[in-house]
Amino acid sequence: MLSVVLIGSGNVAFHLAKVLMTSKEINLRQVYGRDVSKWQHLKGKTEITNNLSDLATADIYIIAVSDNAIEEVSKQLATKNSIVLHTSGSTPLSVLQHQNKGVLYPLQTFSKEKKVDFEEIPICIEGNSEETEETLRFFAEKISKKVFFVNSEQRKKLHLSAVFVCNFVNHLYYLGQQLCDESQLPFDILQPLIAETAEKIKLLSPFEAQTGPAKRMDTKTIEKHLSLLTNNPKKIYILLTKSIYETYGKEL
Amino acid sequence: MLSVVLIGSGNVAFHLAKVLMTSKEINLRQVYGRDVSKWQHLKGKTEITNNLSDLATADIYIIAVSDNAIEEVSKQLATKNSIVLHTSGSTPLSVLQHQNKGVLYPLQTFSKEKKVDFEEIPICIEGNSEETEETLRFFAEKISKKVFFVNSEQRKKLHLSAVFVCNFVNHLYYLGQQLCDESQLPFDILQPLIAETAEKIKLLSPFEAQTGPAKRMDTKTIEKHLSLLTNNPKKIYILLTKSIYETYGKEL
Repeated sequence: MLSVVLIGSGNVAFHLAKVLMTSKEINLRQVYGRDVSKWQHLKGKTEITNNLSDLATADIYIIAVSDNAIEEVSKQLATKNSIVLHTSGSTPLSVLQHQNKGVLYPLQTFSKEKKVDFEEIPICIEGNSEETEETLRFFAEKISKKVFFVNSEQRKKLHLSAVFVCNFVNHLYYLGQQLCDESQLPFDILQPLIAETAEKIKLLSPFEAQTGPAKRMDTKTIEKHLSLLTNNPKKIYILLTKSIYETYGKEL
Repeated sequence: MLSVVLIGSGNVAFHLAKVLMTSKEINLRQVYGRDVSKWQHLKGKTEITNNLSDLATADIYIIAVSDNAIEEVSKQLATKNSIVLHTSGSTPLSVLQHQNKGVLYPLQTFSKEKKVDFEEIPICIEGNSEETEETLRFFAEKISKKVFFVNSEQRKKLHLSAVFVCNFVNHLYYLGQQLCDESQLPFDILQPLIAETAEKIKLLSPFEAQTGPAKRMDTKTIEKHLSLLTNNPKKIYILLTKSIYETYGKEL
């Protein structure tokens, strides 16, 4: 059985702890958080500490803190033979200073309020040796059905593409909602469209799935839309329309 | 039983015909297309014509042609007491010149290759009289569980918000896929993230659901991302980051 110490108390750490607690083949020995109240819900179920020099011995240490703090935390970990991991999409493996080190990047958007099915989350792993990668794969497969080897160079771009398809997409949902609000229409009216847009690309490529006035070069509708917009939404409309135009071989 | 003539042969007409054919309370008397081969699959099941002056008598005429052609087709319809509808999100009711007229706007993205569950599609209706609206509601409820009264002003903005949450979102999927391709990673790796991003806003508002470097004001990660981008994707990254910043009260 693999023993694990989890360091951090943000959204990723929260959901990782949850899935690690349910696994029969993993022993979550201890969780660390500067603010131990974040781990209240695990009281009596596992060890909780707010002292980095008080960490338990474990096979794997997972550093799930904010990107900027990873290196600092890593320097304070006095472990020798264990594997030290971070969970960041945009941080190279090299910031970790340990002999056995790796990355375990769960490619998902986490909010504490929203349950996720960890089994379905792609886990991107990288290790600094074959042996570490094997242990890492064994570990990752205990919590997810979708494990990918992704090196630091690939992960940089993968993280960036996640910003496009998740963070930026969510902001477009936000702008869509603003427009509904302005017209006293419930945001719910857009939900089936949002769901179908995400669903469609399981069958068609995004290139094939594209619809709308920009794709059709329907300048009359585009003009009408622009007359309804100001500020950032207008700039975003113009730029994305231009980008769609150029994707389909037309210069704006 | 309501009798219907359907004019047009694009994606909306294709899917409308499909659901109308299955309804026991609606009689799809005839379909019209300039190119009758588009209606081959209905041969023997309903009447097919490519002659506008040869249309059958019906209670409802649905003009499901491209936005620019609606007015022209409407002028050629010599019907008197029937209801004439168009299906366009961005076209006001007033372009129709008939005594009894309305709009039946299905708020969904349609591609011929992809099946849709019409029952779940919000149908936005508007009529030029109470009587027409009642017939329209009766008709719309035969094909969908989600019928909304949406006037021309509201529909303009609703159509615009659909461009943001569907067309533009799909283009961001496309840009995400390009980045995966560059790293020899399968686009499939992004699917759970895409699905969860769309799913999450059923529970949280887009404002609450926002995550990522722009929301966190993580300038270090943003700088890293920008160094990986050029051209339109870079401009889009900068503009959407700025817009997210400002949404959360920070000026970039």
